[in-house]
Amino acid sequence: MLYCVHMTVNVPQGMDPERFERLKAEEKAVAQDLQRSGKWRHLWRVAGQYANISVFDVDNHDELHGLLSSLPLFPFMDVTVTPLARHPSAID
Amino acid sequence: MLYCVHMTVNVPQGMDPERFERLKAEEKAVAQDLQRSGKWRHLWRVAGQYANISVFDVDNHDELHGLLSSLPLFPFMDVTVTPLARHPSAID
Amino acid sequence: MLYCVHMTVNVPQGMDPERFERLKAEEKAVAQDLQRSGKWRHLWRVAGQYANISVFDVDNHDELHGLLSSLPLFPFMDVTVTPLARHPSAID
Amino acid sequence: MLYCVHMTVNVPQGMDPERFERLKAEEKAVAQDLQRSGKWRHLWRVAGQYANISVFDVDNHDELHGLLSSLPLFPFMDVTVTPLARHPSAID
Amino acid sequence: MLYCVHMTVNVPQGMDPERFERLKAEEKAVAQDLQRSGKWRHLWRVAGQYANISVFDVDNHDELHGLLSSLPLFPFMDVTVTPLARHPSAID
Amino acid sequence: MLYCVHMTVNVPQGMDPERFERLKAEEKAVAQDLQRSGKWRHLWRVAGQYANISVFDVDNHDELHGLLSSLPLFPFMDVTVTPLARHPSAID
Amino acid sequence: MLYCVHMTVNVPQGMDPERFERLKAEEKAVAQDLQRSGKWRHLWRVAGQYANISVFDVDNHDELHGLLSSLPLFPFMDVTVTPLARHPSAID
Amino acid sequence: MLYCVHMTVNVPQGMDPERFERLKAEEKAVAQDLQRSGKWRHLWRVAGQYANISVFDVDNHDELHGLLSSLPLFPFMDVTVTPLARHPSAID
Amino acid sequence: MLYCVHMTVNVPQGMDPERFERLKAEEKAVAQDLQRSGKWRHLWRVAGQYANISVFDVDNHDELHGLLSSLPLFPFMDVTVTPLARHPSAID
Amino acid sequence: MLYCVHMTVNVPQGMDPERFERLKAEEKAVAQDLQRSGKWRHLWRVAGQYANISVFDVDNHDELHGLLSSLPLFPFMDVTVTPLARHPSAID
Repeated sequence: MLYCVHMTVNVPQGMDPERFERLKAEEKAVAQDLQRSGKWRHLWRVAGQYANISVFDVDNHDELHGLLSSLPLFPFMDVTVTPLARHPSAID
Repeated sequence: MLYCVHMTVNVPQGMDPERFERLKAEEKAVAQDLQRSGKWRHLWRVAGQYANISVFDVDNHDELHGLLSSLPLFPFMDVTVTPLARHPSAID
Repeated sequence: MLYCVHMTVNVPQGMDPERFERLKAEEKAVAQDLQRSGKWRHLWRVAGQYANISVFDVDNHDELHGLLSSLPLFPFMDVTVTPLARHPSAID
Repeated sequence: MLYCVHMTVNVPQGMDPERFERLKAEEKAVAQDLQRSGKWRHLWRVAGQYANISVFDVDNHDELHGLLSSLPLFPFMDVTVTPLARHPSAID
Repeated sequence: MLYCVHMTVNVPQGMDPERFERLKAEEKAVAQDLQRSGKWRHLWRVAGQYANISVFDVDNHDELHGLLSSLPLFPFMDVTVTPLARHPSAID
Repeated sequence: MLYCVHMTVNVPQGMDPERFERLKAEEKAVAQDLQRSGKWRHLWRVAGQYANISVFDVDNHDELHGLLSSLPLFPFMDVTVTPLARHPSAID
Repeated sequence: MLYCVHMTVNVPQGMDPERFERLKAEEKAVAQDLQRSGKWRHLWRVAGQYANISVFDVDNHDELHGLLSSLPLFPFMDVTVTPLARHPSAID
Repeated sequence: MLYCVHMTVNVPQGMDPERFERLKAEEKAVAQDLQRSGKWRHLWRVAGQYANISVFDVDNHDELHGLLSSLPLFPFMDVTVTPLARHPSAID
Repeated sequence: MLYCVHMTVNVPQGMDPERFERLKAEEKAVAQDLQRSGKWRHLWRVAGQYANISVFDVDNHDELHGLLSSLPLFPFMDVTVTPLARHPSAID
Repeated sequence: MLYCVHMTVNVPQGMDPERFERLKAEEKAVAQDLQRSGKWRHLWRVAGQYANISVFDVDNHDELHGLLSSLPLFPFMDVTVTPLARHPSAID
């Protein structure tokens, strides 16, 4: 099932830069694993913002929540989730 | 270039149902042509709303505006456009 | 899977009262069938508003959208959908 | 009487992790007691967010406020409360 | 139990003035009966707007919804309801 | 003259608990004096939030501002003020 | 006492132009009388909008509401009222 | 002086198409005259919306309001105006 | 030219009280000088908030920005600026 | 291609003034280079705010994001991006 997920990262002021770099590296690794697994189907950068629009393909809400809430940057994110149904005009 | 486009259709009250069905059929035909051409890359229904989240792949803003503003249902739509850049963690 | 759905009904001005009563009766019948089937698990009235907060239990987004968009009053509704995951402190 | 309560937890930056873990454990214990007592009737996780949608069944506003304001995580929460009346189409 | 209720009346354009005057007269009669019964404890006009801030004293959400939804002007109202608990500093 | 005042208290993170308890005690004393004087006519707790809805009865805006801005918790408050006129349907 | 009043006029679609011109002429006459009386102390046009920012000097909320609600264009207005107290740095 | 003006056109439902085409043609003529005069310095289409972002160069607010409020489509517009000062990093 | 300026002061938590008192004193001095010069034409306190509604009379946007951005409390302010044109019904 | 970019700078409380002055100087240098290159086509100050409205002329979203996200003050900015298409009434 598909979910459109909009994530905005709010880097806390005074955050230890090195720690944040480590978190970002971990985030990248997790994101790439999930993309290779097909779970994280699309990952785009919102131009001009520290945010992304993604599409996840997972079995259910619990799995989605598990993936998102375990992202290293989750504690610094504002997240909105939009369930995507099949559009009657979609050809794929 | 990719654009995330969120379209919400507001069916005007008192609209002639037959005319609206014709418009919807035209909209579907246009949408399917654009998908086949690769311009309208993704088209998903927002579950529970007469709205969609789409991703367009076009050359520039003018082309995007031309496509969107000529959609049969455009006069009844609220549209937001988000330019999508390449995400540093994206694997594709 | 559970979805929290908030529906607000906007009765169009100048709507034929008899037609709207018929629609409401149809809506009630559909809602009660869906509750009996277990799909529409909870249906509560927001006190003071022509709105409800409901919980649906369906297999996926497509099924949810199918049910909601076929409700007789759907054309007059503002709808928000929130996917509900299992809470780690929930005992049921 | 039923109340729909939407709680979003904002974990303060620089919060002592151990203290927060203790608070979370206390919160879980309180939440589970209240569920066993029937006061906290439903507790669902908003997929993708550190938030929940709950339904409380208590005698009056004072009791609701007493329960919510004594939750260990209350100081870190944004809370909205919606009183739920009986829906004319509800079958239970 | 006390509820703070904020009602804004949106007079539909093209409404038959005489019909609306009748509705307003009925609304006034109902409001004054409810005040005399103690249910509608406070009724204040928001200065500069066709809106009021009221406090209702009723037994439960169902009674509140029954009263509000049967007001003659209810179909033309935006209503927000805030449950009021006892304040620890209140002297009455 | 009557003013409806909605006060939300935002307890700053890292605030010295003892200092805040003192401030709260001072706030309570001031609030109770003002209630006894008739200036602070109504004080209700918004169920589920560290907020109150109050009605003040003072001579003018300056007096209102003087009272509110000298409340011990004022620096931690979001405040909205709504001037209340006499409602044509009010019986008192 | 001073009130800052922001009025936005929403001209209903399909309004009889002549009727609206009459209303506007009446509005102008009332506004100019009130200015001459000192009640309507300032009247400025919000550049680019059919709206104004005004300052009224009246004795109390009831008088303000009476003046505003009897303006010929009141039924077509969105109005916000902000009570103005004396500023400690004001020299007049 | 420069003003950034964001104009969104809301085509009223049921508007006579021919009348609206005439208005649009008049609007275009006015807009092009003003551009040639240097008053309307920039005019860009917001991609995906019946809206534009413009920059006007006029002597004062009155002149701006005069120009905007006399645009043929002004009655159908939502307009926001942002005064633009010289940026300390601007090189022109 | 006239500008309506709404300034809300957000006192940062943990701010050195003495430093803030000095800033406030400097702000008052600047404000009073500007009022005596006629630039800061009106200065009113929003009743109940640490905010003011002011009217500035300056030659252009640059001068306005220069004055506002050099206010001692500017770094702690949320500011909105509304250009005021002459109202056709204004008598002064 | 043109993008309208609205940037609001939020200076974090407790920021080392000297470091922020360095960042601002770097920002100015980068901004002036980009203006000279034609990429940053317009840069205006929003009067009364620590914000700017700019127009960028770059080849695609990736280039825009690259430029914006590498601005020294980017971490302290709220940014909105609006793609600008050619307006049918534009004469240039």
